[in-house]
Amino acid sequence: MSQLKCQISVSLDGYVAGPNPSLEEPLGRNGERIHDWVVRTRAWREQHGYEGGEDGADSEIVDDMVRGIGAYIMGRNMFGGGPGPWDGEWRGWWGDEPPFHVPVFVLTHHPREPLEMQGGTTFHFVTDGIEAALERAREAAGDADVMLAGGAEAVQQYLRAGLVDELFLHIAPVVLGGGRRLLDGVGYVPLEQVEVVSSPRVTHVRYRVG
Amino acid sequence: MSQLKCQISVSLDGYVAGPNPSLEEPLGRNGERIHDWVVRTRAWREQHGYEGGEDGADSEIVDDMVRGIGAYIMGRNMFGGGPGPWDGEWRGWWGDEPPFHVPVFVLTHHPREPLEMQGGTTFHFVTDGIEAALERAREAAGDADVMLAGGAEAVQQYLRAGLVDELFLHIAPVVLGGGRRLLDGVGYVPLEQVEVVSSPRVTHVRYRVG
Repeated sequence: MSQLKCQISVSLDGYVAGPNPSLEEPLGRNGERIHDWVVRTRAWREQHGYEGGEDGADSEIVDDMVRGIGAYIMGRNMFGGGPGPWDGEWRGWWGDEPPFHVPVFVLTHHPREPLEMQGGTTFHFVTDGIEAALERAREAAGDADVMLAGGAEAVQQYLRAGLVDELFLHIAPVVLGGGRRLLDGVGYVPLEQVEVVSSPRVTHVRYRVG
Repeated sequence: MSQLKCQISVSLDGYVAGPNPSLEEPLGRNGERIHDWVVRTRAWREQHGYEGGEDGADSEIVDDMVRGIGAYIMGRNMFGGGPGPWDGEWRGWWGDEPPFHVPVFVLTHHPREPLEMQGGTTFHFVTDGIEAALERAREAAGDADVMLAGGAEAVQQYLRAGLVDELFLHIAPVVLGGGRRLLDGVGYVPLEQVEVVSSPRVTHVRYRVG
């Protein structure tokens, strides 16, 4: 069966976003430092339609992450949009051609028709829970794997349910001192460390869960 | 000037000990998994008077950690002993010949005469604060460095005061889900990642602080 993988960038103290998020700092105070490493890579820039960027270990990691992924799952905060009247208009943070190029299953409480974007990405809105979302994502992925893209709450739900096969963390060299923690409320989870790759900007550690 | 280094083992979710410590599990539930990697090394076993153990990257890390260290600082919980009547009798967790072999400055509120052990370790009890302890440790260390050995509270105090030069974490492959967190209450601390070494059992990351 295809695997449920999760990859996410965290600060050394385990936050996916810093304290006091605002319109000016949506990732919280100093939260962008978590992503310093990725936005500099050629692979990330290419995936998001920008020129340039740096080659090297980090860029290869980003390239590898999308290989073999046949569907994504993400929480409603990661997709964005609020429960207000504009909810039905919101088309995600990624413009007309999101960098997924496969079906994306968004966990939400608000039913909505699938949203077909350019370049192969279709957002499906799943209202009947994380297991249903995983089942649909696996079906869409076929032999390929499913990537749990975030945010923290969605990752916690899947970890608590024992459904995550692989946890791939990118540990950024910064202590944020507050914000949204990734691994809160998930209880005891034994891991097997299967790969460590590093650049001067970040440490990538891949774990097998359970 | 000699550097203040700090090295400590943590779980992936940042705990130095698990939840619900007891006499049977002094490091809390599953807390011993944080130290699985180190107790298997030849270097740690040799330092603590045991035979055997494994050579390799982890053992070399343990060997390297004590090189160039001229004095240690530790918090009162790490030294052990309580505020009760037996406080004055307590001689630490390490037997008659502790593995330090240099002066060790213990942060405490209880004045006590220095305690000279076998093999070069003398415990000095410092009651006038972390800066005084650092000053005395630096004086004792001469050109060598000072190692802040733990526990979490002592590390937090020195980090908050901006006195730590190097943070060397050994990140164990386990999520404990509760316990005593290392990097709580220290605010924003930018780091520079200077070295990553890994074995299948642990990821060692060395950071320059500030």
